[in-house]
Amino acid sequence: MELFFLGTGAGVPGKLRNVTSIALKLLEERGSIWLFDCGEATQHQILHTSIKPSRIEHIFITHLHGDHIYGLPGLLASRSFQGGESKVTVFGPSGLKSYVETSLKVSGTYLKYPLEIVEINEGVLFEDDQFIVEARKLDHGILSYGFRIVEKDRPGTLLVDKLNEAGVKPGPIYKKIKEGESVTLEDGTVLDAARFVGPKQQGRVVTILGDTRMCEEARILASEADVLVHEATFANGEEALAHDYYHSTTSQAAEIAKRANVKKLCITHISSRYDRNAAQDLVQEARHIFPNTEIADDFKSIAIPR
Amino acid sequence: MELFFLGTGAGVPGKLRNVTSIALKLLEERGSIWLFDCGEATQHQILHTSIKPSRIEHIFITHLHGDHIYGLPGLLASRSFQGGESKVTVFGPSGLKSYVETSLKVSGTYLKYPLEIVEINEGVLFEDDQFIVEARKLDHGILSYGFRIVEKDRPGTLLVDKLNEAGVKPGPIYKKIKEGESVTLEDGTVLDAARFVGPKQQGRVVTILGDTRMCEEARILASEADVLVHEATFANGEEALAHDYYHSTTSQAAEIAKRANVKKLCITHISSRYDRNAAQDLVQEARHIFPNTEIADDFKSIAIPR
Ligand SMILES: [Zn+2]
Ligand SMILES: [Zn+2]
Repeated sequence: MELFFLGTGAGVPGKLRNVTSIALKLLEERGSIWLFDCGEATQHQILHTSIKPSRIEHIFITHLHGDHIYGLPGLLASRSFQGGESKVTVFGPSGLKSYVETSLKVSGTYLKYPLEIVEINEGVLFEDDQFIVEARKLDHGILSYGFRIVEKDRPGTLLVDKLNEAGVKPGPIYKKIKEGESVTLEDGTVLDAARFVGPKQQGRVVTILGDTRMCEEARILASEADVLVHEATFANGEEALAHDYYHSTTSQAAEIAKRANVKKLCITHISSRYDRNAAQDLVQEARHIFPNTEIADDFKSIAIPR
Repeated sequence: MELFFLGTGAGVPGKLRNVTSIALKLLEERGSIWLFDCGEATQHQILHTSIKPSRIEHIFITHLHGDHIYGLPGLLASRSFQGGESKVTVFGPSGLKSYVETSLKVSGTYLKYPLEIVEINEGVLFEDDQFIVEARKLDHGILSYGFRIVEKDRPGTLLVDKLNEAGVKPGPIYKKIKEGESVTLEDGTVLDAARFVGPKQQGRVVTILGDTRMCEEARILASEADVLVHEATFANGEEALAHDYYHSTTSQAAEIAKRANVKKLCITHISSRYDRNAAQDLVQEARHIFPNTEIADDFKSIAIPR
């Protein structure tokens, strides 16, 4: 599980940062990649990475501003051209379906894989035996969502040596014990599952937010997360500007990270007014409030260890 | 007057060539830039040039395939964000208006300049005292246009020394003579305008074609042009492939240039199957039939002298 930043700028593309897209690489977990937002030229950024578009399984769109969606039709079309065959589901606010369908239809683009576009509301968007993804509305003028991606806990490994010691032979009984079920043997012995199963592996939590002012919903989505990705369009001191344009400052992002008690904060969506040097000041501002902060750059990856 | 290639690839963006866009720089002539097609990341390409988006006056779209239009909403939006205030007119096939308007509306983009979208037919698209632009349908499966951009001839300069010698004093009479009108003086002398005006400056002709099979309409649009920009998606010998996909080979492009008796041919829309070395073979193939051929590369400019 790894976050990979494809675009970390705000509003318009610049030489230093492209407009927003973030890949959540779940290659070990499920052999797939989830994308969060898809600004123009996201597919161009991908050309310079090891990411295979055919691996993209879900695309989550935080909000419909152009710098977060204008790369979507091109990415979807090229994925087909390059032989992608597996289904893609795109989740995002109402209006997304009309935008994508019009773009593909007008351009005569026929995808060779199934595409589902899900216009979302708050709540659970997706759940399977591995992950659950939940959305909440943020504060950005236009409807903007934040996503909490929760990896489910995994049962501990079966302690086979201990089972052998207890004279329990391999068989269907192993599966029951692994699933936490206590078992009574033919001779009346009761096997307490807890004794034969290692500690469960706790799932990780990643919170990725769309553009937003500092808000309580952000804190709720980020609560106890392993990593929080929060926008920080402006520097500390620019709170009035941030408020007017429905964005956040570095310090506000850090304040949310602190209140939510996350393990790591990653700030992104950096205004083009800040060059490479100024970006170092931005991260220091955030660290003043929340020490374990990193600033995203295009092509930067952040591992999310268990 | 200068052609500047922003994207010279076919179908999908690659590391070597972006998808199609061509700028016709008319800075000396009218202080403006005309764009032909606008594939995804055209605005990103522009970041690495001296082109100011605020100078873009007209955008001509040859056809609606994604590799020719997916950069349009982003370019139009960023032009506004960056302070562009003058009107932009976009000419292109039916469907263009719905695509651009949906993209801008869904993304909540409000342009601070007037935008006109003209869905075109064959014939004259634009005419003023300097230029006339004419369109014809090509052969690309989907409706694809070629454009003939004709600079109007300019009257020769007034030969003031000769007028002085003839004893003609400056005044309204100079204007009449410059416009080719012969004038009778008070003493009955007839001044033959032709004697006092230098040779007229012949306007230039540039022909820029959308994706197409080799076709007669291409030849008509290119007739006697100073420069013909013709697609050459495939190498000589791949005529069957070119036919199946509604494209042209290098040799077919050169054949049209020869038949149309143009001064220079520029081949573009090169398939990503050809690397930098293979591109040298492509241009040689074309030169075998039409010697004054160049191959376009991203960021290459071609001057169009009078
Ligand atoms: Zn944004
Ligand atoms: Zn094309």
